[in-house]
Amino acid sequence: MTRTMTALPEILVLPQKPHGIPVESLVSSLRARYDGDVSLARTSDEIDAALPSATVVVGNYISPDDLDQAGALELFACSYAGTDHLPLSELREQGVTVTNAGGVHASNVAEHAVGSLLSLTRGLFRARRQQRNHEWRNFQPGELAGRTVTVVGLGAIGTAIARRLRPFDVDLRAVRHTPEKGGPADAVFGYDDLETALAGSEGVVLACPLTETTEDLLDGAAFDLLDPDAVVVNVARGGVIETDALVDALRWNHIRGAALDVTDPEPLPPEHPLWDFENVLITPHNGGYTPEYYDRLADIVVGNVEHAVESGSWDNLDNQVVP
Amino acid sequence: MTRTMTALPEILVLPQKPHGIPVESLVSSLRARYDGDVSLARTSDEIDAALPSATVVVGNYISPDDLDQAGALELFACSYAGTDHLPLSELREQGVTVTNAGGVHASNVAEHAVGSLLSLTRGLFRARRQQRNHEWRNFQPGELAGRTVTVVGLGAIGTAIARRLRPFDVDLRAVRHTPEKGGPADAVFGYDDLETALAGSEGVVLACPLTETTEDLLDGAAFDLLDPDAVVVNVARGGVIETDALVDALRWNHIRGAALDVTDPEPLPPEHPLWDFENVLITPHNGGYTPEYYDRLADIVVGNVEHAVESGSWDNLDNQVVP
Repeated sequence: MTRTMTALPEILVLPQKPHGIPVESLVSSLRARYDGDVSLARTSDEIDAALPSATVVVGNYISPDDLDQAGALELFACSYAGTDHLPLSELREQGVTVTNAGGVHASNVAEHAVGSLLSLTRGLFRARRQQRNHEWRNFQPGELAGRTVTVVGLGAIGTAIARRLRPFDVDLRAVRHTPEKGGPADAVFGYDDLETALAGSEGVVLACPLTETTEDLLDGAAFDLLDPDAVVVNVARGGVIETDALVDALRWNHIRGAALDVTDPEPLPPEHPLWDFENVLITPHNGGYTPEYYDRLADIVVGNVEHAVESGSWDNLDNQVVP
Repeated sequence: MTRTMTALPEILVLPQKPHGIPVESLVSSLRARYDGDVSLARTSDEIDAALPSATVVVGNYISPDDLDQAGALELFACSYAGTDHLPLSELREQGVTVTNAGGVHASNVAEHAVGSLLSLTRGLFRARRQQRNHEWRNFQPGELAGRTVTVVGLGAIGTAIARRLRPFDVDLRAVRHTPEKGGPADAVFGYDDLETALAGSEGVVLACPLTETTEDLLDGAAFDLLDPDAVVVNVARGGVIETDALVDALRWNHIRGAALDVTDPEPLPPEHPLWDFENVLITPHNGGYTPEYYDRLADIVVGNVEHAVESGSWDNLDNQVVP
């Protein structure tokens, strides 16, 4: 859409608190980067008062009702990487440009994934258990070097994981929808060749979106293909693993262990058996947390608004989802 | 020393059991690579019988008394990376060539160090504590990307650590005796410039030998230089850290945490306060353990013996310590 913008529009920030970071931090991050005004609407009354004239809104969600009020809205900058929860067709109909926060999480999720893989491989949680007993006693950890590790998904996060794993001297495999694009791995497979990629793998890192193709991707047959020493790391979505098959693989010692930042169901119910395996690490879906979250989001939003003012159009934005 | 060797000499293996791996594994690893004979002396009687005619011996130690018996000895291949415990002057006098197992541990120690750094940065041990309570509750971990990490020591292990840290997008500093040699870091400092390297560092990985220069390298003044969010990892020797100063830095929240694979004293006594800090990981000096230990040692020993037979001399061996 072509617009005539002679000045920097005000940026309206809606209430939100991802990972417990106060929304005031986002306002500060935006103000530190932006020469225009940045305002925060906190209460329902403030939101109702601000929406009708708002042209740029930053929030994790906007309801269809709010959208009806926002007749002047030109850009909705979603503060989440995923936008499936948004009323996308309504936004599209109303001619609103939508961006997401994709890529903001790549480095921290990659750190989480590689850290989890190394911790389980090197027995660091076992060491921590011995430490509770003040027990200085040697044991035999494993090693990544020379092993085969498969990264499933080569988006921003999977690519960041693969790039960090390379100097660990692993035989690195990757699985993606478009294997012809290649990637930072020794071999890149399509989902049709998943079994070839998994066969004998000693590490599997799931970093793909949850789709019809990837739902229950790791089932009983897949766990059977893995090396008995395999460590499985899931930073994708819980549904990519068939949970019962994972519990079986753990129970019968078919894999070395698992690190789950996402589970199915999620949150994991208190009575679920996965909590109590000594070779499982459960993190509460906070791999995506980064202290840089709002700074990186502000970089995207301010860059896009400045670009739009310069070019006179909301086209070709970074992280553009709609149109 | 120039020798006339027309055939591959027998390799004699002395009893040893590093990290609980049976010595038979070393014999197997050697036999898989070597066309000559490999024999194992297990009891004192077997050792006394084998030593007088042995030309090549592999062991973690040889006593001066054993050496007196070993009149035909040409190569003592020490199975440890360090050789300070050997009677080096006696070996030298007797004209015995000595090699060590240096470099065998580089990849696993690097994995241990980077895994420890990531685990403490990402709060994985905190997650494990919550997991014990079946508690799905978000918390805010840290992130390495964009932070300053200093690696002290750029030998085989320090270099392996630095190489693995690079794609984590850290501002990487290194400290070594010969900074003019450079290294895989954004800035390389000499020990004279240690304070400059430590100032504001958010991660410190100690991978240097224990020398007069490095003894008590991290003292109270050094801890004061670090960022309050700093994670300290020690895979060097316990004496590189002044333990009381570390305990103080932890007690008063001057650093984020520490991962200690080595301690001073070592083993850490059961009543020591370091055991019980929630933000400290104690591992029982097993960062050096690798399931590939004997395979890598056998690569060095067999390569050297074959080289000596071909060249007719025990000069220019890999990992040669004496002469």
